[in-house]
Amino acid sequence: MNDRIRKPAAKEVLLAHGSGGRDMHQLVEGLIVPRLDNPLLAALEDQACLEINGVQLAFTTDSYVVDPIFFPGGDIGSLSVHGTVNDLAMSGARPLYLSLALILEEGFPMADLERLLESIAGAARENAVQVVTGDTKVVHRNSADKIFINTSGVGLLEGPRIPGAVGVRPGDKVLLSGSLGDHGMTILSLREGFRFDSPLASDSAGLWPLVEAMQKAAGGSIRAMRDPTRGGLATTLNEIAARSRVGIRLEEAEIPVNESVRGACEILGLDPLYVANEGKLVAFVGPEGADALLEALRGHPLGAGARCIGTVVEDDRHQVILQTAFGGSRIVDMLSGDPLPRIC
Amino acid sequence: MNDRIRKPAAKEVLLAHGSGGRDMHQLVEGLIVPRLDNPLLAALEDQACLEINGVQLAFTTDSYVVDPIFFPGGDIGSLSVHGTVNDLAMSGARPLYLSLALILEEGFPMADLERLLESIAGAARENAVQVVTGDTKVVHRNSADKIFINTSGVGLLEGPRIPGAVGVRPGDKVLLSGSLGDHGMTILSLREGFRFDSPLASDSAGLWPLVEAMQKAAGGSIRAMRDPTRGGLATTLNEIAARSRVGIRLEEAEIPVNESVRGACEILGLDPLYVANEGKLVAFVGPEGADALLEALRGHPLGAGARCIGTVVEDDRHQVILQTAFGGSRIVDMLSGDPLPRIC
Repeated sequence: MNDRIRKPAAKEVLLAHGSGGRDMHQLVEGLIVPRLDNPLLAALEDQACLEINGVQLAFTTDSYVVDPIFFPGGDIGSLSVHGTVNDLAMSGARPLYLSLALILEEGFPMADLERLLESIAGAARENAVQVVTGDTKVVHRNSADKIFINTSGVGLLEGPRIPGAVGVRPGDKVLLSGSLGDHGMTILSLREGFRFDSPLASDSAGLWPLVEAMQKAAGGSIRAMRDPTRGGLATTLNEIAARSRVGIRLEEAEIPVNESVRGACEILGLDPLYVANEGKLVAFVGPEGADALLEALRGHPLGAGARCIGTVVEDDRHQVILQTAFGGSRIVDMLSGDPLPRIC
Repeated sequence: MNDRIRKPAAKEVLLAHGSGGRDMHQLVEGLIVPRLDNPLLAALEDQACLEINGVQLAFTTDSYVVDPIFFPGGDIGSLSVHGTVNDLAMSGARPLYLSLALILEEGFPMADLERLLESIAGAARENAVQVVTGDTKVVHRNSADKIFINTSGVGLLEGPRIPGAVGVRPGDKVLLSGSLGDHGMTILSLREGFRFDSPLASDSAGLWPLVEAMQKAAGGSIRAMRDPTRGGLATTLNEIAARSRVGIRLEEAEIPVNESVRGACEILGLDPLYVANEGKLVAFVGPEGADALLEALRGHPLGAGARCIGTVVEDDRHQVILQTAFGGSRIVDMLSGDPLPRIC
């Protein structure tokens, strides 16, 4: 992400190295990327954009290790489709084909596997992608926890090229497609056995229809898009600020958070800005296209709660600063540690 | 694979469902493929061949869970490059791009991770592929065993199209690129703590250079290629025989097995025909191209031990029959059970 990144000091892999936050950046940028040195990987986007014989493709991969594997709003199966579809869509690519690789723990109930396969098939149909290749491994009891799923995806880049994380400029607007923290707080509450008055549900969903609507409305003004998963919106914004060498000013009053999520966060001492989402996107857009893009987002059920939550500014320190609802301001840093392991 | 395949009778996932053999076929063809119904997946090749805007691509995925993770001849890192490169190459595609997704157990030594990354980088360089996108997850101690790696791959289909597993015809020759069982017996011997006089080493290697040489020599006569990994050569041949509705006659005397592998197999009561390979290919070729292809194989270090090991025949029962060195014959069936879990 920047020149200060060094390889991890820890002698062992820690849960925080999978957090999506600062420790993971050290692992990825300090240890992994330098060894596999190539410009496509070093771009550190959530997908690689490839040109093969004149055709522009996006290619991405994610492993899913969420615990529990079934949750309100989805399961590890549908999540494994949505997450990879979204990583393709964030580059502006139409998701086309997925691979599906299962690592199963010996003794995993066949009925649960059937249920997950139905869920994967349903999510693939809804998102107009085909699962075209796969792999199945089984490991001994206690050598994995139930089921891990990897999906990789190939998509087609048809519309105007999105500059990506290095292409954000002062004056750009920051659009968020809806409420924060629904996925992460659903998983955490289930895991901790909390019950709340208003039910929590994951926002897990495929975002390509939103992106397609945005491309039609004012695709040329989109600078960068991300789905803020692990590490939450705060981490995503810090990544973009650092890579584009800009600052970001957020308006807390504009950031939508559902009451049930806000309540759960207060009880558990968490900030919704750091909690994972699986059906939301944040877009950095040129000011000339911001109104049209916001309208396009709001015109789709997946973006009905969209808001303009902030502005990109010049800032040599590349800080993300939140203007609080009470008139103050505070620095929003990248996630440190990992309060929410195995969230996706 | 054929009409008799039903979904697994077991209520739980068994180690045998990851074997590559009969039980895995039931799981994949009885449970998974019907739900994700599409012709590309249903082709049941080790890769999907896609056409995107006129460009012909191969796309494949594999997760690697081998135990132990370091072994003579390689490690889980280089294996994860070779295995996926080979699945692309078997379709005749030039391997271009890989994804790399790591699932790490909390506490995994950072030094081992560095060593594996060096190995991945080296194997990628040697095979002229770029690792362009990735993912890192960390799970709690005892929720995974050390490290699992998924690589997916994209390759370019340039040469004549290979018909694949349904395209083999009576009269075709069966070419094998070298000795059987080296990878599987290396892993098993390490795991069981056996020591043999002559050292065992995995054959793990990327096979694209061999395929490229074959394409140049007589690419149009290649009907199908496979790398016989889990389940060994016996399982691969049974798959092809069933899908092409032919029989296969093998000459035992022509099948190369290294002395150290033969000795280890005898002690452990295993048949090299069922033991995994990670740097060998079997090719079904039209008789008109067999000599040229065998010469092309033998002209490359990876194929120096290549032999013509058999012939495809008409056989309504789609049997693989081995003519033994002593003049008898026996049926070689698909692998049942799983004598060698976590071999790749």
